[in-house]
Amino acid sequence: MADPRFFDRKGPFTLAQLAEASGAEIADGADPNRLFHDVAPLDAAGPGEVAFLDNRKYTDAFARSAAGAAFVDRSHAAKAPAGMALLLTPEPYKAYARAAWKFYPPQSPPTGIATTAAVDPSVRLGADCWVGDYAVIEAGVEIGARCRIGHHAVIGRSVVLGDDVTVGSHASLGYCLIGSRVTLYPGVRIGQDGFGFAPDPSGHLKVPQLGRVIIEDDVEIGANTTVDRGAGPDTIVRRGTMIDNLVQLGHNVVVGRGCVLVAQVGISGSTKLGDFVMVGGQAGLAGHLTIGSGAKIAAMSGVMRDVPAGETVCGQPAVPIKEFFRQVAVVQRLAKKGGT
Amino acid sequence: MADPRFFDRKGPFTLAQLAEASGAEIADGADPNRLFHDVAPLDAAGPGEVAFLDNRKYTDAFARSAAGAAFVDRSHAAKAPAGMALLLTPEPYKAYARAAWKFYPPQSPPTGIATTAAVDPSVRLGADCWVGDYAVIEAGVEIGARCRIGHHAVIGRSVVLGDDVTVGSHASLGYCLIGSRVTLYPGVRIGQDGFGFAPDPSGHLKVPQLGRVIIEDDVEIGANTTVDRGAGPDTIVRRGTMIDNLVQLGHNVVVGRGCVLVAQVGISGSTKLGDFVMVGGQAGLAGHLTIGSGAKIAAMSGVMRDVPAGETVCGQPAVPIKEFFRQVAVVQRLAKKGGT
Amino acid sequence: MADPRFFDRKGPFTLAQLAEASGAEIADGADPNRLFHDVAPLDAAGPGEVAFLDNRKYTDAFARSAAGAAFVDRSHAAKAPAGMALLLTPEPYKAYARAAWKFYPPQSPPTGIATTAAVDPSVRLGADCWVGDYAVIEAGVEIGARCRIGHHAVIGRSVVLGDDVTVGSHASLGYCLIGSRVTLYPGVRIGQDGFGFAPDPSGHLKVPQLGRVIIEDDVEIGANTTVDRGAGPDTIVRRGTMIDNLVQLGHNVVVGRGCVLVAQVGISGSTKLGDFVMVGGQAGLAGHLTIGSGAKIAAMSGVMRDVPAGETVCGQPAVPIKEFFRQVAVVQRLAKKGGT
Repeated sequence: MADPRFFDRKGPFTLAQLAEASGAEIADGADPNRLFHDVAPLDAAGPGEVAFLDNRKYTDAFARSAAGAAFVDRSHAAKAPAGMALLLTPEPYKAYARAAWKFYPPQSPPTGIATTAAVDPSVRLGADCWVGDYAVIEAGVEIGARCRIGHHAVIGRSVVLGDDVTVGSHASLGYCLIGSRVTLYPGVRIGQDGFGFAPDPSGHLKVPQLGRVIIEDDVEIGANTTVDRGAGPDTIVRRGTMIDNLVQLGHNVVVGRGCVLVAQVGISGSTKLGDFVMVGGQAGLAGHLTIGSGAKIAAMSGVMRDVPAGETVCGQPAVPIKEFFRQVAVVQRLAKKGGT
Repeated sequence: MADPRFFDRKGPFTLAQLAEASGAEIADGADPNRLFHDVAPLDAAGPGEVAFLDNRKYTDAFARSAAGAAFVDRSHAAKAPAGMALLLTPEPYKAYARAAWKFYPPQSPPTGIATTAAVDPSVRLGADCWVGDYAVIEAGVEIGARCRIGHHAVIGRSVVLGDDVTVGSHASLGYCLIGSRVTLYPGVRIGQDGFGFAPDPSGHLKVPQLGRVIIEDDVEIGANTTVDRGAGPDTIVRRGTMIDNLVQLGHNVVVGRGCVLVAQVGISGSTKLGDFVMVGGQAGLAGHLTIGSGAKIAAMSGVMRDVPAGETVCGQPAVPIKEFFRQVAVVQRLAKKGGT
Repeated sequence: MADPRFFDRKGPFTLAQLAEASGAEIADGADPNRLFHDVAPLDAAGPGEVAFLDNRKYTDAFARSAAGAAFVDRSHAAKAPAGMALLLTPEPYKAYARAAWKFYPPQSPPTGIATTAAVDPSVRLGADCWVGDYAVIEAGVEIGARCRIGHHAVIGRSVVLGDDVTVGSHASLGYCLIGSRVTLYPGVRIGQDGFGFAPDPSGHLKVPQLGRVIIEDDVEIGANTTVDRGAGPDTIVRRGTMIDNLVQLGHNVVVGRGCVLVAQVGISGSTKLGDFVMVGGQAGLAGHLTIGSGAKIAAMSGVMRDVPAGETVCGQPAVPIKEFFRQVAVVQRLAKKGGT
């Protein structure tokens, strides 16, 4: 079970309650009134706990699991151990997530302003906000309702936050407009000058960075990630996009709706991503590119050219994934015979 | 126009004033007394605004632009739309930068020490400095004139800063000597122990890190970048070098004058770069290498050997760029025919 | 010599004292009573200083060195310049480290709690701790003896620290249990939510992250590194592991004992490393992998598959290193002849 020092658990819940919360269907033979106390991973779950199988790699762990119940796709149901109650769903991970939220609902955020916080008198704070110790909120900032501003966060002059925004500890925000239900993790840096200068041997000439950062609703930005403000246009992250830790977004970058950027990705200045683009960890995108909606960029790829909508690319320089695998295969074959 | 919540604009200025400020030449037919209110990107600028064309990718945007004037190289002048006043210059980006500084001059920094800052009585602060909320400045620190120490910055014992230094919020500095006109962005970590230990199965043995970090004049270091102090020699960044976000410099690294290190670059311990070296994003350099002056290291390259002065390298392992392109070409050709 | 503004030096010590402290053997002809004042690098050391030769690249510097003494392997002794006293040891770097600690012993940490720190009344602090300015320690935290909590560090609710732990400035810790003699560098982020969500075009569904981060004894974690907490299982870093700056560990990652992770490495969720695994800088590991004990992963490798114990891999995708070199060789050969 989750460590009670860190997590507050609700329940128990019946199988029927979990099925209802998750949208899954109870498989024949399972008792809808059976009680469950917690969620747990397949290899750790006991008879009172609910697990899930989503990744085929864990099919053996599923077959050996002592979990009392599991969310599983119908196609894997036959591999379940005897006595396991099955919650059938084509999306076991989502169903698990909903059940887990039932056991561990979001804690109602604290409210109030720490006496140690430095909040400028001109700041407009919505209802039921929380401001942590030593947070600094500069003049002209507008903050919506139910926001949580972490310890030591710095919110620079005139920044605007929507409702239900979480700003992690030690985050710094400047020159930005943030939507609602946005989560910024600890150490995020938003709105500093982009890397804009005209190279010159006698001294690189800095170019004023006159844009902003626009973060739309429902975005998450991971720990220690850096998002530079625009040079003239804005840097924009559209609605529902998830950005992991230690990612770099250069000035004027536009990330479309619902994108996923895995840790340590770097996107150079003025590159624009469409909607629902997936970028694997440590991939790098050159500047001034256009990446079409639905494109997938494999981890560690180095993207030097535009990527059409829906295409999957891989490699350095990145090419369509089928071509990448052919390249890898031909090099491996030649290496094995010692070349030609 | 730049968001007035974040930026204070001067002007308007005549075309003649902008030509003078930027060093550009007014093309025939343009009215030197025409007034301009702002700078703007090509695709957003209107008749009262000045844009620029520097990257050939944007030639179409230039031809369609409604900008009242633009900085442009003589060779592209013919593509200008009717009615656009041209400011001719071989360096449009620099000219634009100078004009932009005229509209948006650097704000005169605030001065004074926040009452919440923890400044040791032994600290020597130059004239007209600003120290933000909750900044910590330890014993023996010497700070020159007109420095700006951000909220929550920590400046460790005996650190020395020159004049006109900007230390971003949440930056931490220790064991370092910083020149004048240096800008350190938020979350920068300077002077911590390098990754120095003797590997040992019974417990890696730490080696005392007895050097410093020396940052010369006119250097910029990006957000959340980390610069370890020397192990015995110093870690050094020479005059005028620009370092982007999330870069790692190991102990004893020397970066020469006027270098450019793009985001997420990593330079391993004791590697030395000459002057005016360019390192593309996410490139990695092994330890104990010598990179000659004027060398260019392409983004994502993995440099395993010394690079001669002036050479451009690419790839993993990095090779001269012509060889890299031949390698890419041969692999792509073989992959297309299915190998041999 | 080390800058006395930053380092306090002891000594002088005789050659015999240094031999005893380091476990090295005095070579014939050297005077055991000769006094030494400091350690220094080969190229900077003078007659009163002790250097070391460990990396063959520096053999020339050794032969030219003016150092009064040096730690060196017997096999290089013949190259020593006349008059240099030799301290023979098969492990010159370790011997040097021990001598350096004799000249520069760890400073006895300060103690006391800064009046500006925000420490919840329920916190249990061991003897002789130091808590820096503006540190925040939330309810229920337990801290062992002789810990040093840096300025601006944030230690979240119910976190547990062992003895002799150093938490760097601006670090943030949550949902974690930390062993003894652990060093966390400035800007470390430990315990935030992992990147866990079920992708969905209508809005990615976040999954509660119910695990913790467990850091065992004698671990070091570098500046601005991020360690996400487990999703259900814990994220674990076992005893004696050294982690460099700007590294990313995803949720449920397990890093075994005595591992070394160089800067900017990224390890995706649920991947498990055995003991004494070495991971070179900027390498990336996909999720759900098993890396055997003693494996070595070269810098910048992209690991897509399990790696057996003791194997060395390299490349993207990573292959056994011999195969990697064959691949590089065959591509370079083909590129030189212009392909086939």
